[in-house]
Amino acid sequence: MFESVRIVLVNTSHPGNIGGVARAMKNMGFARLYLVDPKEFPSASATARSSGAGDLLQQAQVVATLDEALVDCTYVVGASARGRHIPWPVVDPRQLVEQLMTEFFPPADGTKPVTAPPEVALVFGREDRGLTNDELHRCHRHVHIPANPDFSSLNLAAAVQVLCYELRMGLLQQERQAQQDAGIEQPYWGTEWDIELASAEELQRLFEHMEKTLVDIDFLDPGNPRQLMTRLRRLYLRSRPDRVEVNVLRGILTATQKLVEGAD
Amino acid sequence: MFESVRIVLVNTSHPGNIGGVARAMKNMGFARLYLVDPKEFPSASATARSSGAGDLLQQAQVVATLDEALVDCTYVVGASARGRHIPWPVVDPRQLVEQLMTEFFPPADGTKPVTAPPEVALVFGREDRGLTNDELHRCHRHVHIPANPDFSSLNLAAAVQVLCYELRMGLLQQERQAQQDAGIEQPYWGTEWDIELASAEELQRLFEHMEKTLVDIDFLDPGNPRQLMTRLRRLYLRSRPDRVEVNVLRGILTATQKLVEGAD
Repeated sequence: MFESVRIVLVNTSHPGNIGGVARAMKNMGFARLYLVDPKEFPSASATARSSGAGDLLQQAQVVATLDEALVDCTYVVGASARGRHIPWPVVDPRQLVEQLMTEFFPPADGTKPVTAPPEVALVFGREDRGLTNDELHRCHRHVHIPANPDFSSLNLAAAVQVLCYELRMGLLQQERQAQQDAGIEQPYWGTEWDIELASAEELQRLFEHMEKTLVDIDFLDPGNPRQLMTRLRRLYLRSRPDRVEVNVLRGILTATQKLVEGAD
Repeated sequence: MFESVRIVLVNTSHPGNIGGVARAMKNMGFARLYLVDPKEFPSASATARSSGAGDLLQQAQVVATLDEALVDCTYVVGASARGRHIPWPVVDPRQLVEQLMTEFFPPADGTKPVTAPPEVALVFGREDRGLTNDELHRCHRHVHIPANPDFSSLNLAAAVQVLCYELRMGLLQQERQAQQDAGIEQPYWGTEWDIELASAEELQRLFEHMEKTLVDIDFLDPGNPRQLMTRLRRLYLRSRPDRVEVNVLRGILTATQKLVEGAD
């Protein structure tokens, strides 16, 4: 997908924004930037704002007209504010990505013939006025970021960030789905854990140790235990302790018991 | 939800980024900005980059420590890069929003008692080094934007943009779901259409008019029509023409027929 999507900026006024767009694109894994008649480019402020995405700026295609930027594209999407004179089919970024992933970038399942994916252009307009009606009428779909109606104009790089983020998430979700379908489990806490989970037996020994210690320090009355151990079990079990964590807790209990023995 | 979420920036170096964050927040409907020990604030470059979100900067709470920024919060989320020494529960922005909407901001269904939603803090670190381990260990969850591993550091305002966008989308999707549950249809093309759809009868008359005209101009051979009308029907029906569009097409056909009559 990353190779098949180009970002097209039309008549950008501030070169800093071109740099910001390059950074946002590279952060999300995209590389193909087309600049239609930019006011000022190349520019030191574009390079500064790109913050390490200078390679995208160097490879950017600078062209004179939108036509040239759309060569070879089979699907053209224009970023649009609401409220055009003539309504045009419009989607939000999430709907756009769902549609693109389904139609153009379906998961490779090994049975379909491998065909080159179509070229898709995402077109963004001027900082102050967006795309003209003529430019918007070149698009199959318009995409609208559902912003605060009272303050709806996003910075150009911010708008590109949102669209590229959605595309990247679309691909990641497709990959996750494939892993899930293949029975590969996702890590419970969203990251590989460094330590093995404690076993039920280790947890049981922890709670027995804890209960004994709480009696020793006169916090738990064995004659009237109420729900204390229940609450503590619930608390610790909810966090699914690992082995090192259980050892840490037992170490604390042991140190506490030593203190009690010393006091006796 | 918008009133219950605060954005906390820790030790921001570049005041321009604070302005960019304010703009991104206001674009997405958020207003509550906390600044922990910013290097330079207030600042003209913050105001310039905020581009009309100066009200958020004026109302921003400037505090000396993260503790002060987290007063009254019951849920704290820290923006984090991957690969911490000790793994911590981590979600991506979409997972975070799903979780927050489910747990803290469920749809109002009229049956539940209205309780004040909890205060949620989203904490973002320094431009160059993010949050310290101590700061990250204050958080219930970490959130990681799944960026390009080779170029993973987003601009601060871009990161806030992505998180605030996801939150806004979470609320919008909840509202859409409620409308769908209430049987309220969403507009087919994503926007209210200005003209009524053409009826089947109007379309049938259009295609008859079209067929007759194509015969008149010697493009369609009635003795060997092949699939021409089928293809044209499929093309036009796919776009679900409205009444004005049908009238426009019939006007073109009528003008064409006049030309044929004149030529005879």
